[in-house]
This record gives sequence, structure tokens and C-alpha cells, in this order.
Amino acid sequence: MANLSRMQNAGADNRIEIHSKDNKTVKLAASLAEKKHRDALGAYLIEGPNLVREALQQGVKIQFIFTGAGALSQQQEIEEILRLAEFSDSAVCVLSEDCFAKIATSSTPQPIMAVAEKRTWQIRDVFSPGGNVLVLDRIQDPGNLGTLLRTAEATGFSGALLIKGGADPYGPKAVRAGAGCIFRFPLLLCSSPADALALLTEQRKTVWTADMEGTPCFEADLAQNVAVVIGNEGNGADALFKENNGRVTVPMAGKTESLNAGIAAAILMYESMRQRRTQDVRYDTATL
Amino acid sequence: MANLSRMQNAGADNRIEIHSKDNKTVKLAASLAEKKHRDALGAYLIEGPNLVREALQQGVKIQFIFTGAGALSQQQEIEEILRLAEFSDSAVCVLSEDCFAKIATSSTPQPIMAVAEKRTWQIRDVFSPGGNVLVLDRIQDPGNLGTLLRTAEATGFSGALLIKGGADPYGPKAVRAGAGCIFRFPLLLCSSPADALALLTEQRKTVWTADMEGTPCFEADLAQNVAVVIGNEGNGADALFKENNGRVTVPMAGKTESLNAGIAAAILMYESMRQRRTQDVRYDTATL
Repeated sequence: MANLSRMQNAGADNRIEIHSKDNKTVKLAASLAEKKHRDALGAYLIEGPNLVREALQQGVKIQFIFTGAGALSQQQEIEEILRLAEFSDSAVCVLSEDCFAKIATSSTPQPIMAVAEKRTWQIRDVFSPGGNVLVLDRIQDPGNLGTLLRTAEATGFSGALLIKGGADPYGPKAVRAGAGCIFRFPLLLCSSPADALALLTEQRKTVWTADMEGTPCFEADLAQNVAVVIGNEGNGADALFKENNGRVTVPMAGKTESLNAGIAAAILMYESMRQRRTQDVRYDTATL
Repeated sequence: MANLSRMQNAGADNRIEIHSKDNKTVKLAASLAEKKHRDALGAYLIEGPNLVREALQQGVKIQFIFTGAGALSQQQEIEEILRLAEFSDSAVCVLSEDCFAKIATSSTPQPIMAVAEKRTWQIRDVFSPGGNVLVLDRIQDPGNLGTLLRTAEATGFSGALLIKGGADPYGPKAVRAGAGCIFRFPLLLCSSPADALALLTEQRKTVWTADMEGTPCFEADLAQNVAVVIGNEGNGADALFKENNGRVTVPMAGKTESLNAGIAAAILMYESMRQRRTQDVRYDTATL
């Protein structure tokens, strides 16, 4: 109780209590469950203490932070996050249970949520000299999409191109699976495979498309300056990517017919990282 | 329509129509959604044309095949699968829509399902001389579990040990994510980490436990005769696995704090496969 009252005093200036589900802010936040509203507002919802803390620490622009009246007195973690928020322009809203439930998209209830502004990335953010990029050709599953971006960041890829028509990287499931990479990993949306290829050619990247039939990844040169193209879970990558470009395959033993798309892509990106690291050791040039 | 009548004649001897949700077979199949019933009956449910076909082709013992009255005339694929079933001892049940829905666990309705008998694996099935095994220490997410087993098969691992207390590999989500590997990939359930370690010592496997702090996987010798231990998504592997054994880490670039458990395990298993293949080339000894 001592903590609670101290907190209420400290942060009272930016704290709003909301009890009505018809409140404008509650309605706005709830609308972010749909892509068309995320697109129109240039904003998205983040859920859970880990993601909200990370967004604040990384300077993501946060418009609103939502917490439940019950959560405040219960959780030290929430308290710490709200202290972080004092240094931002975020408005903190303490919501009644039904308001909170109206906004939340996660089936496991989270004690804190926030509305974040999308970042706008430039071509120069996504591409770096010698760097590798991931190209996602209409990945349908938002969990796969988030995991793929998270793995691309973990393997030192400089950014990703997303072909229009797949899952939205700012959707709640993708944000969750991405574990915070959406706050800092540069993304560009391309309107078609042809547009993406034109950009890759301009940036002089060697295009390798993941395919069932191609060079085994352990024999393909993926070390640097490559674009790894991962196709849609059902149909694979667009034919345009495969024509006149290399195809790369993740070898499989036994009777396995295919791998989960996220796993196959992770193997390719890690093989790229391994080759780059091995070259680093051998030639002692760039560091990862 | 011509196809349908031919099929009805051909398979009429093993085909049963069921319209009541209180039917014994319907109740049995529906009960398989729960682990305790799968354990008691030594059976599990498989859903969808791909899995049912694969089970029949691979000689899995199928007790019942279920299809809906509507599905029969619609789908050539179902027809082909039912022809395969004529060579097995499976009873084919044509169910009313509500009976079918009572059994189904998938949110995307599948036109065909089956009740399969669990296989019993021996220690000699799981272990092979020089071969690698996967050890799963209480993986909680059934999707992760299925994906992990599928990747282990794809990387030529000989089998897996599962520590009691995790998701059931015969649960519907695990079976789906495993994409058929449950029909042929040898599994043993161990009652504790200590039991698993005793077995691994007896089989002279070198134990490598995936951990945040350890030898980078590209520098660890994972080529052969190893056991790769993957811990629970929340808490990692049991301390017993880490004590007196090697720890192996998947390197990460950027600000990524962790990888999805399925991804991290896939990287380790593929690195093992890559090392083994490279050794094959170098020494021209065994083939994968």
C-alpha cells in the first residue's frame, strides 16, 4: 500500500482513470485489433510487461499505456514500467476490468498494454553494404512472421522486405512472436515480387530463394550481401524469385517431407551467420 | 457420381453409418482429446487427409477412419484414402455432421480423421551406434513439441527421450505440428532427468544441453554420438543436465534476448547434421 500511494503521487499528473467502454481512447485501442485501423492510425497494440518495458527502453513512441486498477497494487513489475513511462510522453490510463478486456487480444490476460506508433523505415535502414536481408513473400501465419523477423535480427540480418498480401507484422500475434524485434528491426513493404526484385537488384544483393529443389544450404555461399527469400507457407515463393536466381534447399534426412517454414528459414539464416563468422575468423575482416 | 457408387460398392463391407452422438465409437474417439484416455486406450486421433494417408501408407495400425456423409461425394482425395484403407483392418465410419464435430479437435474442419494405435518403442529403436538423440525436458507447448520431433527426424537424429511432465506427443496439436513424424520417429518417455541421464550414460552419448551460456554451437563438436538436451520454454533444462555436461549456445546478434525454443533446437540439430556431413566429405566414412 505504501508503494501504491507513492506511485499514485509520483505519476498522478499523467494518469487517467477510465470506467466506460465507450471512452474514445478505449475504442481507439480496441480498434487496433484490425489491420485497417492500424494502417489508418499508424499505430499498434503491444501487450504484456516485457514488451511494454522494452518499447519504453528503446524509445518507441508510446501514446497510451493501459493498466487495470487491480494490477497497480499487485505488481512491482508494473510499478517499475510506469516509472519508466514518466520519462516519456505516454498517457497512463487505469482501466476498469471490462475496458481492459475490450482492448486485450491475448487469451492469457496481461496486466499492462500500450499503444505504440509505427516507425517509418527508409531503404537505407533496411540495406547495409555487404549486409544480408530477409524477403518474406506473403507469409500467412502471424506467429511464423514474428518468429522469422526475430530470427533475422538474431542472425545479424540488416532488415526485411515484406511482399504485400501476407500477415501484418504489426498484428498482435506477430508482435508477440517477434518478442520486441518490431521496435528496432527495419522493415519495408513492397507492393509485388517484381518491385522487391527491382530493389534487390538496385542494392546488388544476390538472391537465394528457399525451395524444395536447389543447392543444399551448406554448399551455397550465403555469407554476405545476400537476400534470402522465404515463400508463403502453402505455395512457396513467387516464380519470379526463382527465375534467374539461385534456389537453396534445407537438406532433410529420413521420411520428412517438409519443415515448418519458420524452421527452414532459421536454418538458412543461421547458415549465413555461420559462414560469415567462419570467414571472419579466416580472413579477419569485418566483425558481425 | 459414378465414382461415388463404385466406391460404395467396393468398400461396403467395412463401412458403417453412424448418426448418434451417443454411439460407442464416437464417444471413444471424442475421448481421445484427453491425455488420460489416450494413455488408457493406447490410441490417438489423427486429423486431415495428409496425415491419415501417411499413416495408412506407413502401416500404422488404424482402428477407425471417420468421414462425413458430405465429404464422400465431394473429394477425390478422400476416395483415394478410403481405397488405401481397404488393405488395412480399419473400419470406415461415415458420420453425421454433429458426430464428426464431436470428435474433431481442429478449428479448421478436416474431411477425414482416424483413430491410430500408439507404437511401442524399445531402447534399441531410439539409440543407434554413433547416432544422435534429442532429449526434451518437459516442453510445454504441443506445437513446439511436434515441430521439434519433426526437425529431429529431418536432421537424421535416431530418436528422442521425453522427460515426463511436458506436453503429450500424441495430443492433437503435437501430432499436427509433427506432420507425420509420430508414425515413425522412435520416442521413449523417461520418468525424470536422472533416469534420462542414466540411460544416456549407459548408451555412451555425449550430453550437450542448450543454454544461454555455453560453447557457441558452431564451435561445439555435435557431429555424432551426442544427446542434445532442450529445456522447458520457461525455465530451461533441469540443472542435472547442465552439471558435469557440456552447455551449448546458439549465438545471437543484435538486441535479441532469446530465440523461440523450437528455432534454437533446430539450429543445434542442423549444426550437428552439417558437421556430420562435412566429416563425411572429409573422411569419406559413413553416409548420413
